[in-house]
Amino acid sequence: MSEHDAGFKAALEEAKQGASEGGIPIGACLVSKEGKILGRGHNMRIQKKSATLHAEVSTLENAGRLPASAYEGATMYTTLSPCHMCTGACILYKLSRVVMGENNTLVGGEETLKRAGVELVNLKNAECEALMKKFIEEHPDDWLVLMRGYEDIGEPPKKGTE
Amino acid sequence: MSEHDAGFKAALEEAKQGASEGGIPIGACLVSKEGKILGRGHNMRIQKKSATLHAEVSTLENAGRLPASAYEGATMYTTLSPCHMCTGACILYKLSRVVMGENNTLVGGEETLKRAGVELVNLKNAECEALMKKFIEEHPDDWLVLMRGYEDIGEPPKKGTE
Ligand SMILES: [Ca+2]
Ligand SMILES: [Ca+2]
Ligand SMILES: [Zn+2]
Ligand SMILES: [Zn+2]
Repeated sequence: MSEHDAGFKAALEEAKQGASEGGIPIGACLVSKEGKILGRGHNMRIQKKSATLHAEVSTLENAGRLPASAYEGATMYTTLSPCHMCTGACILYKLSRVVMGENNTLVGGEETLKRAGVELVNLKNAECEALMKKFIEEHPDDWLVLMRGYEDIGEPPKKGTE
Repeated sequence: MSEHDAGFKAALEEAKQGASEGGIPIGACLVSKEGKILGRGHNMRIQKKSATLHAEVSTLENAGRLPASAYEGATMYTTLSPCHMCTGACILYKLSRVVMGENNTLVGGEETLKRAGVELVNLKNAECEALMKKFIEEHPDDWLVLMRGYEDIGEPPKKGTE
């Protein structure tokens, strides 16, 4: 597992796509045991005013309704340590591995993933962290995680700011 | 917490609505600390070929993008014990309580919810259980939980059956 994996590159591209849309720059990509990209996506909280379309949930949603066998041995690449919901989604689908870009911005449900037997890899990627740092500096009210301890539960946009 | 709660009635109505659409009959409703219905929804796996729109996720999505304060003290009513993803969603949003209709059909992430300090109530409601029993009998291939141990990861519909 490395920054050269196609799944990681796709997740990072998704994060950048999110940034270019004014969204929270978190991307993800689901890769099958055989190395096939099953789905990819990015956080849509701001773009769709969505409470649930985090990068990993968007990715599973974009992958569509698959048979359980499709998820066997699969890896979820995500640019940031997955929150509790996305952690639970990876456990629901019995993914084998979660590869995260970084967890300096926040630590999500890593202990829960380990308890469930999901392999965890942290690529400690500087670009993923820089994308989040820039976003938080520019949109402090959309990222209250430092105060609240969980992912992207921002206050709704102020009237007239969008 | 009882079957007479507006939140439970709404969740059960949603489950029946799902059944009437040919979907998996699981409904949910999110109720604020003050007793206001913030959102409601039902499982859309079959209707939208969705891998993530479980009843509780649909409910959070339908409630929209709310400030963190809106979830404080809130209760998620759901007709069935929440799966790991929906468990994680309730933990992400720091809900105070999960009230389930039943857990005879399956036991989801109840231990994880308890560990996170979420209050759990089981109403042991016969109607919720009967809806699921009927669905599973009529659509065995859409509900492989008994074999696989988790919620509604069915095989995709066979060609020509929809
Ligand atoms: Ca804002
Ligand atoms: Ca079927
Ligand atoms: Zn998440
Ligand atoms: Zn669920």
